Amino acid sequence: MDPTLSDLPQATGNASYTEKAQALRQRLASSIPESLRLPSTLLDNLPLDVTSIPASCGLLTPEELALTDLDATAIRDKIAAGKLTCVEVVTAFGKRAAIAHQLVHCLVDYFLDEGIARAKELDEYFKREGKVVGPLHGVPISIKDHVPLKGHYASAGFLSTVEVSAEDCDMTSILRELGAVFYVKTNQPQTVMHLESHSVYGRTLNPRNLNTTPGGSSGGESALIAMQGSPLGIGTDGGGSIRNPCANTGIYGMRPTGRTMPTKGYLAFADGHMGFYVATGPMCRSARDIDMFFSAVRSAHPELRDPSQLPSPWTTLPQGRKLRVGVMVYDDVVLPQPPMIRALEWARKKLEAADNIEVVDYKPYCHPEGYAIIREMWYEDGGNAVRRLLKEGGEDSMPLTDWVIEPSAVKDHDTQGIWDLHGRRDKFRQRYWDQWKAQGCDVVLLPPFPGSANLHDRARHWSYTAIWNAVDYPGVVFPSGLTVDPALDALRASDYVPVTDADKANYADYDVEKMVGSPLSLQLVARRFEDGMLLAAQHVVEEALKRE
Amino acid sequence: MDPTLSDLPQATGNASYTEKAQALRQRLASSIPESLRLPSTLLDNLPLDVTSIPASCGLLTPEELALTDLDATAIRDKIAAGKLTCVEVVTAFGKRAAIAHQLVHCLVDYFLDEGIARAKELDEYFKREGKVVGPLHGVPISIKDHVPLKGHYASAGFLSTVEVSAEDCDMTSILRELGAVFYVKTNQPQTVMHLESHSVYGRTLNPRNLNTTPGGSSGGESALIAMQGSPLGIGTDGGGSIRNPCANTGIYGMRPTGRTMPTKGYLAFADGHMGFYVATGPMCRSARDIDMFFSAVRSAHPELRDPSQLPSPWTTLPQGRKLRVGVMVYDDVVLPQPPMIRALEWARKKLEAADNIEVVDYKPYCHPEGYAIIREMWYEDGGNAVRRLLKEGGEDSMPLTDWVIEPSAVKDHDTQGIWDLHGRRDKFRQRYWDQWKAQGCDVVLLPPFPGSANLHDRARHWSYTAIWNAVDYPGVVFPSGLTVDPALDALRASDYVPVTDADKANYADYDVEKMVGSPLSLQLVARRFEDGMLLAAQHVVEEALKRE
Repeated sequence: MDPTLSDLPQATGNASYTEKAQALRQRLASSIPESLRLPSTLLDNLPLDVTSIPASCGLLTPEELALTDLDATAIRDKIAAGKLTCVEVVTAFGKRAAIAHQLVHCLVDYFLDEGIARAKELDEYFKREGKVVGPLHGVPISIKDHVPLKGHYASAGFLSTVEVSAEDCDMTSILRELGAVFYVKTNQPQTVMHLESHSVYGRTLNPRNLNTTPGGSSGGESALIAMQGSPLGIGTDGGGSIRNPCANTGIYGMRPTGRTMPTKGYLAFADGHMGFYVATGPMCRSARDIDMFFSAVRSAHPELRDPSQLPSPWTTLPQGRKLRVGVMVYDDVVLPQPPMIRALEWARKKLEAADNIEVVDYKPYCHPEGYAIIREMWYEDGGNAVRRLLKEGGEDSMPLTDWVIEPSAVKDHDTQGIWDLHGRRDKFRQRYWDQWKAQGCDVVLLPPFPGSANLHDRARHWSYTAIWNAVDYPGVVFPSGLTVDPALDALRASDYVPVTDADKANYADYDVEKMVGSPLSLQLVARRFEDGMLLAAQHVVEEALKRE
Repeated sequence: MDPTLSDLPQATGNASYTEKAQALRQRLASSIPESLRLPSTLLDNLPLDVTSIPASCGLLTPEELALTDLDATAIRDKIAAGKLTCVEVVTAFGKRAAIAHQLVHCLVDYFLDEGIARAKELDEYFKREGKVVGPLHGVPISIKDHVPLKGHYASAGFLSTVEVSAEDCDMTSILRELGAVFYVKTNQPQTVMHLESHSVYGRTLNPRNLNTTPGGSSGGESALIAMQGSPLGIGTDGGGSIRNPCANTGIYGMRPTGRTMPTKGYLAFADGHMGFYVATGPMCRSARDIDMFFSAVRSAHPELRDPSQLPSPWTTLPQGRKLRVGVMVYDDVVLPQPPMIRALEWARKKLEAADNIEVVDYKPYCHPEGYAIIREMWYEDGGNAVRRLLKEGGEDSMPLTDWVIEPSAVKDHDTQGIWDLHGRRDKFRQRYWDQWKAQGCDVVLLPPFPGSANLHDRARHWSYTAIWNAVDYPGVVFPSGLTVDPALDALRASDYVPVTDADKANYADYDVEKMVGSPLSLQLVARRFEDGMLLAAQHVVEEALKRE
């Protein structure tokens, strides 16, 4: 066991729960081949940062290590050029995923044999026809638990919802047709609504620092991708669940505008929930992989399969003038911890030095109000469905589940109450829209989270991502390249002046020694339906940040 | 008084209601100038069809009669070419609107002086600048009661919601900027949810046949436009409220896909209602006027004003093959009356003779189920808000109000109930989408209503329009050119085999002698977001119908 995991609370329930949970964990554990098992001498003495273990453990060849260093776009291009086979690719990532799982517990299902069989078919097609089946030919893609994949387990974040999917959902069906290769599914938390990933399958750790969480709810994905056990994964985000885990592990990801990417068939605790949209998007290791993903999925016209999909013309950068980037450090809800403030100040200086960017101070507009609205909308029934699903599985509620449905934030509604809540949301969206226009930014750069990855079981500060779910604006998260550094980020308690109770709690959670080396990531957002412009702007911003 | 109106029930309430209602009606009546009043000898002896009275009553000059014969596109073009002034145009339509109102009670507000003042400004601009202010320069546009126009009365269909609008809503603001001239607002029913238009302001009659209703809820518009007292009006449609009144009076109109045209600020009984969208669109006297309206409003980018607006790329006709037109006569909910069946059979033969059209039998897919879903969604609170608003105004509920909120169709919900209802809707939409694709039609031609305009207080058969609100598909209504003819449409009761209770009721309401001369209209629908293709297809279909 690693030094931290054994000390942490694990998922519990009644006898029936325990029995079923053990069976699920046993099935998962036994799916990792003997040949890929790490020795207990290694597992019992893990460093804080385990990302170098795949290279040092001896299970991967130099070729496999080089291959798994590639991003998805490079993999796709090399396969299409005949320089790599699909079998080589999925084998390398599959082996690395098995190693990753033993270190950070990121998977819920492992089926490399199926992936290799599919890869063989694709290689034969390529050899026979001299062309690829589609723009994702041979790209291994990892899939979050609640996203159905035919013949594999899926759940809506509760034991009582675990099932084997009879069919692909629209997203996995499209990805399969475009040439993707599936080989793993990844962990998510109870309720699929924690900024952690702790479920009946176990607790996922952050490979960059085992003291911390990889985030959630797409934290199995982020941990796996940060370990380079997958080049590209599918996450979902109703409050920050793509952006937070990407930020925590230093990878790239995007939450698109709601209903512009297919989510039909995704398991959820309630169909017909309309307060907010759970958006789905890519998690990966380069910005260009985000572009590749959207370009590929859009080419399959998901809006022709599902009438709830919205048309979304692909927007571009403003022409004939500088990109106007708003910068916001503090959202009036919770003050970021010192390393995150340092990262934003560093980024601001870099942007100010770029001659194609105009930096604007972005003032947060009523973020506490918007955050309260989205919290109330997450559980419009006051958490009744969550309690029912926990009870049906004999499953104990975790502390972060108690937090998302705590009565100070959510309540049950009658019809008039639902209308009033949605009416408040719509009026807030209009006011937010108007003030955004008044501030004149194309995009806004801000923290994805008020700090680096949290220590386990403490992630309660969703406001930096959730505000954009309240207004349904797309957001992309990417690494600054900076990490938590005790020499730079130590802050004595006497220097710190908390503004609110949330600030006090966030500061109490800050431990620069334990968080050392954690990635400091950035979030860039744009207005609803400006997804194309946002992605183009991210390239402009990242280029400025990388300039010496 | 005309022969029919005095026999019909009028809006009633308690003493406070009666006093306020009388004041509103008095204000309206006194707004019609003495110089435009029709003599009581005429009003006491009206023919069934009053559409020729503007020409015969002597109040309009030959030039004004010719001008009000033009459609909105012709008016716009002549003004832009300097061949008509805005003052001439609004004066002619304003005078004709005053005459129309005395015959069919279509207005709730009359303010020609304001229209003339605005027209003068536009004429001066045109003279000074040598160009128009926008693509609607000088076009008079009539506005339905619940659509706010700065400084004028508006209501959500209840006395208790009557107010003077402090500002334009997005739609009227946009139209004003594009050059439109406002001069009247038009009647709608109690609740804005009857296929009639009977309110605190009075009951609107169908100018093509005073025995019948002009339909609703945009019936003030349809009566006014059929009288040529307005070339173009703004209606709203959450169940058929543009399409039904257009059909009843033989004019053109379109309900676009929801949230593709601005409705922000429109008065409604509940903000935040999300089961269905009340869509807004044009009502007019030619298909090209519908094109002109959408082209003009889209050019103003309403989506930049309101974050709830959806982008909707303008689609076009399928290329390289015939247009596939499904034809459906009976929706499995209620059998059309004989004249409507005759109109569809006539249209089908015409389409079959066209070499650019392929006719397909369109089979209705579970329309009873979809109709039940949309009825339940109209009043997700079981009608509580309606009862509260009626009570607040001391207003008696009308029979058609009782019908829309009758307990067999609607009920109050808790949160889970709302989610379940919306989940049923979403699943129905998916099934409907899939079967539409399987049937392979581009558009479907069907009745807009199971007959011509109803006799008063009987319009309970919404299914032919409401099904498309359930799935949010756009629909355009236009006249076939045929009318009810006792010689062709007489049907003895012994020939008629009712399938359902609804059929029996619809047949009992059928009175060919009383309905003589009523227009027989057609409805053409397409899938969600195919609004551009639908309009192009309507031109193809109408051309085929007009061919000898």
